[in-house]
Amino acid sequence: MFAKKIALSFIACAVLVGVVSVVAAQSSEQALLERAQQLFKALPADAATAEHPLTPERVALGKILFFETRASIDGTVSCAKCHLPSLHGAEGLPTSFGNMGKAIPRNAPTVFNTALQFVQHYGGNRKDVEEQAEKALISPLAYGNADYAAAEAKLRAIPGYRSLFEKTFPGEAEPITAKNWAKSIGAYERTLLTPAPFDRYLAGDQNALSGQAKTGLDKFINTGCVGCHSGVVVGGTMYQKFGITQDYWTATGSKNIDKGRFNDTKNEADTYMFKVEQLRNVAVTAPYFHDGSVNDLKDAIRIMAKVQLGRDLGADDIGDIQAFLESLTGDVPKEFALVPSLPPAPFKAQP
Amino acid sequence: MFAKKIALSFIACAVLVGVVSVVAAQSSEQALLERAQQLFKALPADAATAEHPLTPERVALGKILFFETRASIDGTVSCAKCHLPSLHGAEGLPTSFGNMGKAIPRNAPTVFNTALQFVQHYGGNRKDVEEQAEKALISPLAYGNADYAAAEAKLRAIPGYRSLFEKTFPGEAEPITAKNWAKSIGAYERTLLTPAPFDRYLAGDQNALSGQAKTGLDKFINTGCVGCHSGVVVGGTMYQKFGITQDYWTATGSKNIDKGRFNDTKNEADTYMFKVEQLRNVAVTAPYFHDGSVNDLKDAIRIMAKVQLGRDLGADDIGDIQAFLESLTGDVPKEFALVPSLPPAPFKAQP
Repeated sequence: MFAKKIALSFIACAVLVGVVSVVAAQSSEQALLERAQQLFKALPADAATAEHPLTPERVALGKILFFETRASIDGTVSCAKCHLPSLHGAEGLPTSFGNMGKAIPRNAPTVFNTALQFVQHYGGNRKDVEEQAEKALISPLAYGNADYAAAEAKLRAIPGYRSLFEKTFPGEAEPITAKNWAKSIGAYERTLLTPAPFDRYLAGDQNALSGQAKTGLDKFINTGCVGCHSGVVVGGTMYQKFGITQDYWTATGSKNIDKGRFNDTKNEADTYMFKVEQLRNVAVTAPYFHDGSVNDLKDAIRIMAKVQLGRDLGADDIGDIQAFLESLTGDVPKEFALVPSLPPAPFKAQP
Repeated sequence: MFAKKIALSFIACAVLVGVVSVVAAQSSEQALLERAQQLFKALPADAATAEHPLTPERVALGKILFFETRASIDGTVSCAKCHLPSLHGAEGLPTSFGNMGKAIPRNAPTVFNTALQFVQHYGGNRKDVEEQAEKALISPLAYGNADYAAAEAKLRAIPGYRSLFEKTFPGEAEPITAKNWAKSIGAYERTLLTPAPFDRYLAGDQNALSGQAKTGLDKFINTGCVGCHSGVVVGGTMYQKFGITQDYWTATGSKNIDKGRFNDTKNEADTYMFKVEQLRNVAVTAPYFHDGSVNDLKDAIRIMAKVQLGRDLGADDIGDIQAFLESLTGDVPKEFALVPSLPPAPFKAQP
């Protein structure tokens, strides 16, 4: 009888401990979610702003222009050349190639969600996707045109564009301009957002993330990654020096030492400063870093913890953080995968 | 009264003449259709053969591989590099660029319907689309691999391909091979057919072609164009010397004189011999000829009549034949415009 009572007490205790730990786990799960909701933000429907409104015409024309090769100096460069629908809006290459096969010193990041970053390019020398699209036309390595007039002449030589630009920018005497090219492509890119499991999690769905992904999220926060990688695209909100506790190239094996923002500003304080990249879709857009010097996501996580935070992460930590990062992978937008037919016309170097 | 009778007779005569000429026109329209049905053929549903059967798995994998850049030596070359979904399966460039931006001496024709041509390439040195896809892997200008093993190693380094190739080629110990790459891409290309108004016409629909297009068809036949450009893809059934009544480059302004099949066979009789190109989609796939030396379809028609048939066509004839050629423009296959997501992995020069 006595033994039975003890046994029952044990069972009661065990049940109580069980209940308490379930409650504790639930409350810690809830606490993690609330913390995440403070640090991150679910994707909006699009990245329109007051300055950059979306119209259906701009988005549709921008989608066509995104694939337009004939505005480049040799007829080979388009936005889609380096931002491939087949490779999640990125390219898979360490660094890109521009017109005439010229080597571009930096990696092409995914175009998805990039409109939500505070500036564009690794060095931040483009304030938004519109400026990026416009200046690309006269970048010697990208579209390679001598000036905007040369690019505009190429577009105007394609008969089908007249009515498309007129419809999109009504009332303008000459709507086929680099500015309107930029407005259209920018509008289109502002629609290329990729909601992911992490967004469902932020909306309160605890089942959207695996247990390991949540552990990884917790470690991502507590290791300090979140110090820079926060907000709606988990990054893209600030500049940061790449290589705080040690020179980055000693860890990445980079062959060329890129001084980051210094290249543009010539300000010593900007040496090795880069835009903190967004991490949405990072798991499917290797290779990593501004020069694509690292192929494996696990290595990229290890290197970042080491050179930015001075932390040596173990294999478990890295695996958990990787699981979290995989929850940032969204589907390729259906509209992006569906390539439009461009107005037919041969490329003309001198229209 | 008499005057009235005469007037009535005149009216009766006029009506009779009208009826006769309508009947005559109808019978000549019918005769033209029957002649066309003898000379041409509507597109089949696909270009499968006993030797090259289509399976849903091969077509699906082939579609993915069509966009695969990472099997090339520098990670930039895919079938889609020169056969763009945005430009009707062609490129808009006079001549193409291969790996490392290398200049390719010939124009990229549309991939649509090409599987139905009797051989591939302008010089006919590829017997079918499968051989074209396979040998492209080791072409120094195209994918640039040293050998098939190098290309296969690149494909095998992309984890997602293992299960896709296994599913497509069950029971093979190592299914990721250049041969299976070729079989898959070939199967996919055998689905890329583009039915056009001319096919509806051949099926008996007189309304599928405008009056001018029918006049142009009649002229296309009677001028002698049809001597070479006949069959299901309006060409693609034989070799022919380019430049019979005069050297072709005197008319095209070609900068380099390409000796055609002679380049491959070293047989003097093959000098300036080229495959007669198909004409399907010709109106939307400028520029023209093996070197893309001519931008305008009207010029191409004029030049062909002159250098092949010794005929000086007038502007009306050219306009009419152009109207007929425009009836060969089909829609971009929906499946082709929808770019697949490739298995993610970074490009590795040495996997």
